[in-house]
Amino acid sequence: MPHIALPPGLPGIRGPMAFRPETAKPINELANILLHEPHTLTRGERELIATYVSSENDCRFCQTVHGAFAAHYHGGDEALVVQVKADPERANVSAKMKALLNIARRVAVNGKLVTSDDVGRARSEGATDLEIHDTVLIAALFCLCNRYVDGLATEMPESPDYYRERAPLVEQIGYTMTPPPTATPAEC
Amino acid sequence: MPHIALPPGLPGIRGPMAFRPETAKPINELANILLHEPHTLTRGERELIATYVSSENDCRFCQTVHGAFAAHYHGGDEALVVQVKADPERANVSAKMKALLNIARRVAVNGKLVTSDDVGRARSEGATDLEIHDTVLIAALFCLCNRYVDGLATEMPESPDYYRERAPLVEQIGYTMTPPPTATPAEC
Repeated sequence: MPHIALPPGLPGIRGPMAFRPETAKPINELANILLHEPHTLTRGERELIATYVSSENDCRFCQTVHGAFAAHYHGGDEALVVQVKADPERANVSAKMKALLNIARRVAVNGKLVTSDDVGRARSEGATDLEIHDTVLIAALFCLCNRYVDGLATEMPESPDYYRERAPLVEQIGYTMTPPPTATPAEC
Repeated sequence: MPHIALPPGLPGIRGPMAFRPETAKPINELANILLHEPHTLTRGERELIATYVSSENDCRFCQTVHGAFAAHYHGGDEALVVQVKADPERANVSAKMKALLNIARRVAVNGKLVTSDDVGRARSEGATDLEIHDTVLIAALFCLCNRYVDGLATEMPESPDYYRERAPLVEQIGYTMTPPPTATPAEC
């Protein structure tokens, strides 16, 4: 049961976002820029970073939602998401992604743990300054989202189908509070 | 030296915010709603929560900036900020603030650590659902900001005067990227 009286029927971050739409708006805008807008990292790669950080923070809702989105963008490859969460260094992702996931893992604990060697490794695998910046900020954003979801003890649906079904909607409209009239809003 | 090529002469979070203004905008909007807009918690109380979380996360820039702002809103009482960072339970703040700082401390580590007893304590000291929600989200936001600042190894000025001098400006214009023409923007 959530710690405060949240609107019923809205799992995970959707409950507190409906409780306080003023703060939901900039959180969704930030998620949309980092995860949905055009980028040199694919949407699937950026969702993998979000999923991995949420897994490291043990946030069940966020790692399940964004894991479903990451799998969707990788042709439904849910095994890849399981691999990345278990051990990115052995997962079937690019050497650049392994280096970025290593940075994200450190940020999830404390930003000070990111070393020059970590950044040098990412750069030697072809990562740009923008990609390194956005990896740090995606990891930091999910440190916010994970704490927001778990700090209020939000509820979540048990069925993984709930999350699988939301993936095509997020692909269509992104993370926004102003979806087209026929759609329901997505959430970070 | 920062991990990526940030615009020079901008300490702490201002460097990466100038590097990527698209993402700076929603971060500042969120900070402005949570820390600056009218609220049942004073600006000084909300800045104390931000400062305490940044101290728990060992982020020197954020705890120094927001500590200066918290002191400014408490009539220049820098000793109060030192007290809160060292031990909120013994600091000269209200019983409600002690209960909210206890929640913030748990969120700084992991949202799951917030218990029903923690929330019950805050409520019994008069905290509303909105105040509990915003305490969790302020703590979560500073988990983002602390990691953003430290994960990119940003630089910071040594002199505490730099931070003291910014406090009246932030009181005037808030956390915004669209300040009046004569002012320079503040930052979260």
